[in-house]
Amino acid sequence: MTTAILLSGGMDSTTLLWWLWSQASDKPIHAISIDYGQRHRIELDCATRLATGIATHKTIVLDLNTIGGSPLTDPELAVPDASAQRQIDTVVPFRNMLFVTLAAAYCETQGIFDLYLAPVKDDFPAYRDCRRPFYDSLEESLCLGATHDTPFRLHTPFVDKWKREIVALGLELNVPYADTHTCYEGQRPACGRCDACSERIAAFKANATNDPLAYASHT
Amino acid sequence: MTTAILLSGGMDSTTLLWWLWSQASDKPIHAISIDYGQRHRIELDCATRLATGIATHKTIVLDLNTIGGSPLTDPELAVPDASAQRQIDTVVPFRNMLFVTLAAAYCETQGIFDLYLAPVKDDFPAYRDCRRPFYDSLEESLCLGATHDTPFRLHTPFVDKWKREIVALGLELNVPYADTHTCYEGQRPACGRCDACSERIAAFKANATNDPLAYASHT
Repeated sequence: MTTAILLSGGMDSTTLLWWLWSQASDKPIHAISIDYGQRHRIELDCATRLATGIATHKTIVLDLNTIGGSPLTDPELAVPDASAQRQIDTVVPFRNMLFVTLAAAYCETQGIFDLYLAPVKDDFPAYRDCRRPFYDSLEESLCLGATHDTPFRLHTPFVDKWKREIVALGLELNVPYADTHTCYEGQRPACGRCDACSERIAAFKANATNDPLAYASHT
Repeated sequence: MTTAILLSGGMDSTTLLWWLWSQASDKPIHAISIDYGQRHRIELDCATRLATGIATHKTIVLDLNTIGGSPLTDPELAVPDASAQRQIDTVVPFRNMLFVTLAAAYCETQGIFDLYLAPVKDDFPAYRDCRRPFYDSLEESLCLGATHDTPFRLHTPFVDKWKREIVALGLELNVPYADTHTCYEGQRPACGRCDACSERIAAFKANATNDPLAYASHT
């Protein structure tokens, strides 16, 4: 039975992919990435590269520019610095719900009934759609709305783990963190100032280890 | 407070728009249509025309060809005749769930918290995502996953009504049925043979009235 995973190309979902693979390296994994018009498009290339040799890979296009409202998709809006404490500004409404539903739709066409994704505890305050009660409800909606009467399962094994714990696990599993992408600005070297960079830097610091990624500056 | 409605340009959602308007003609209505790559694209033009003068209108693009699997979006697959009893083949997995979630995301950016949509009782057997228990669950998911802690409401006033009752209501409300589109084949005159046409023809027959639409043939 094939298992699907939402793979952004970032630190958390890549660690999840490596963890899944470590659990059962003979079980086929199908990685799904969403091209939602993100300005940090580099993460899509990362996802493709990271999946190679481990999972089959599919990129689904969902143009969220049509919705608007977030600097992650609107080049006219500035990505806030972490110091501005404005993580809420980077919210794309119902982004995860759309990603999961699209992935579930694709899974249905492929006969896949298990989808893994990697919300983590650090996302909890700003992103309400990263909490398990939300995923429990969404799982129920997916089961009720599916074409056939087969249970569809959403697995979020990292939902109660902090990013620093993810990095600790990933270091054990030899996750190639240099090949992942995190920066919201979408630049290489990473900006080192946006929320995403700041959280990543802190998670590596907490593990007393160097992030193999190059940064333009550290906050 | 603005109310939103998912307007496909078909018979049911157009009747719902007229009904909403009849309830409170001074209350602003925002109609949302989804361009999902449907082969019956003519319904999008119908939606734009129908909304004019009654509601503001927004078309959101969601390319479901990327998911595949349905003759409604894949020109390589044939739309089945109603006589083939293969309505299940026209299912686009989680189509309504995707439409509602996308519309809800857009509503969030506009400060709208009420979304009307028009599933009807006839859709019940083939489309599990047209049933109220599904929408109850989805409403809960939307409330839990929204950026802010404001209840979001999904209204489905036609969910326990048959298409023939919708037509009866619409005739009272002078819905311009000649301007709506139903045929899955996307042709004018309508094919008269696909499931969508057959159901529409039957609903008008049940009201002993003529459908003002032209058909290539009647089954």
